[in-house]
Amino acid sequence: MKKLMIVYMLLIGTFVLYVYNTHLRDSPANAWNAQGLQGEITETYVMVTFQSGMDFWKSSLKGFEDAAQLLNVSVEYRGATQYDVQEQVTVLEQVIAKNPAGIAITAINSPEIADTINKAVDGGIPVVLFDSQVPGSKASAFVSTNNYNAGVTAAHEMARLLDQAGEVAVVTLENQLNHQERTAGFADTIRGSYPDIRVVTVVDGKGDRLASKEAAGEIMANYPDVSGIFVTEANGGVGIGEAIRLEKKIGDVQVISFDTDKRTLDMIEEGIISASIAQGAWNMGYWSLHFLFHLQHDLTEQQIMESPGISTLPQYVDTGVTVVTKANVKNYYAQ
Amino acid sequence: MKKLMIVYMLLIGTFVLYVYNTHLRDSPANAWNAQGLQGEITETYVMVTFQSGMDFWKSSLKGFEDAAQLLNVSVEYRGATQYDVQEQVTVLEQVIAKNPAGIAITAINSPEIADTINKAVDGGIPVVLFDSQVPGSKASAFVSTNNYNAGVTAAHEMARLLDQAGEVAVVTLENQLNHQERTAGFADTIRGSYPDIRVVTVVDGKGDRLASKEAAGEIMANYPDVSGIFVTEANGGVGIGEAIRLEKKIGDVQVISFDTDKRTLDMIEEGIISASIAQGAWNMGYWSLHFLFHLQHDLTEQQIMESPGISTLPQYVDTGVTVVTKANVKNYYAQ
Repeated sequence: MKKLMIVYMLLIGTFVLYVYNTHLRDSPANAWNAQGLQGEITETYVMVTFQSGMDFWKSSLKGFEDAAQLLNVSVEYRGATQYDVQEQVTVLEQVIAKNPAGIAITAINSPEIADTINKAVDGGIPVVLFDSQVPGSKASAFVSTNNYNAGVTAAHEMARLLDQAGEVAVVTLENQLNHQERTAGFADTIRGSYPDIRVVTVVDGKGDRLASKEAAGEIMANYPDVSGIFVTEANGGVGIGEAIRLEKKIGDVQVISFDTDKRTLDMIEEGIISASIAQGAWNMGYWSLHFLFHLQHDLTEQQIMESPGISTLPQYVDTGVTVVTKANVKNYYAQ
Repeated sequence: MKKLMIVYMLLIGTFVLYVYNTHLRDSPANAWNAQGLQGEITETYVMVTFQSGMDFWKSSLKGFEDAAQLLNVSVEYRGATQYDVQEQVTVLEQVIAKNPAGIAITAINSPEIADTINKAVDGGIPVVLFDSQVPGSKASAFVSTNNYNAGVTAAHEMARLLDQAGEVAVVTLENQLNHQERTAGFADTIRGSYPDIRVVTVVDGKGDRLASKEAAGEIMANYPDVSGIFVTEANGGVGIGEAIRLEKKIGDVQVISFDTDKRTLDMIEEGIISASIAQGAWNMGYWSLHFLFHLQHDLTEQQIMESPGISTLPQYVDTGVTVVTKANVKNYYAQ
């Protein structure tokens, strides 16, 4: 009987230890006192996009999912299929109705979207913007590429390719703010840092492969000495590549494009496009989820200091860019 | 005996469950497969500063410590006592010699410091810069206030205080980049957005209370209609406050200062300083630790994709600013 008692006591002791240990880790009343950063699998964070089939969003979603796996929370992906304000408002309304733990949204810039975002924020749902800014929204942070700096990076790469001398042209989307910024960063840097390179023309490629192909043909006809073209988006990059192939100017005109869709990467492998500016799409999704998690769990200075006036999350994150060339292009194909 | 066997089996079963459960949580071979974000208490992250007694660093260190507590890792604080390049190099060398898990440094801008930082990076120690940039360093990210935007915020606050009309002056530190940026953000915004406000003069307060007090006296003598002064650092703010008290112009000249040291907060309570621009010092430390932890544990896209060309951390984080006024000043006193 004595032996049995010892065994019972050991059994009870181990059990108590087990429960205590489990309790300690699983039920932090206050996340600041928890050991490690971890949520509940029932917490659902939603990523909302427009033109929801775009390759670019897939990389952002991968980052969002990777962060969720680390933090033991769930994610959903919802998007407007088109570039359509009303469709995105509807999608966002549906997401809000489910009261998720947080929303990361890349939004069409419009007052209606800003109003709907503010409805979520006012209702206590954490919201973070990524990739594109929405003036007038009450979202807590903005995670994106600094487009002016991306243009600066493109300018330095162009100067490297041209041995710091020559004539260059820019093909862009004239009415879009982020493309204006890319163009300004490029042109300012060429003018400021490379006296022997001249920006001879800036034309509108309309974000379209064929329009950009045509524009590139005209540039090469009007400026026969042009030795570089910077194009601020990927469709145009492919069109310009086609024009250069047609004119048999591969290697004579260096093309720097933007982003890393498959057709761009293929043209880099082929040597038609010399370089492309890759954005930190994965980081946009990854850090958006971290930020939303911090808001959801009150893991901010405001909470510690009990100071409603003090800002909580960082205001802006520049996820940076990298330059894709033939040397590293293999790394950028989807795994 | 049968009963005893059952008890033994239960005992062994519970024990196995306990060990399995503990093992699952404590020894993730790969952090990406772990449940929750958590390090080891033996991992030591070091914050390195100059003028190590400054109040501002205390807030940053608090954020650094709060993040470490969440992630179950350790921190140390080391700093050069003076604004002295050689002293900071020595401190940094000592920190590197201990091979810490990561270094967050606010550094004096000098090639020697950049070289020492690069020694750490080349030796495999993650390094993140906060508050001040060091051109030429290989640090993985930079976390700071966007000083131009801070100047923009100050301009809008000044316009609000002056009902969008009047003469204003700026007192700054002429040779410091971050102060030039604050001044430019302020002046550009006033010129661009407020046609009835005029920036009448920009003078050097030398970062000094007495020099700034004297400068403010001269401004009020030379421009008797001046109704606002923006000062880009805290010592000058106190000096200007003293000049205004001396001239009995409290309320007639609105002062907007920078940062939240105790003398500034006291003058806001007193009504001599109308507002101050508070930086996100806590967030600088907090997110620096998160970034270092991510590098130390290979929690970056590069690691997932096995793609050495792809950027890992976001390049830049703007921690943002908030405006301190009489209405919320109580929240900013050290707790």
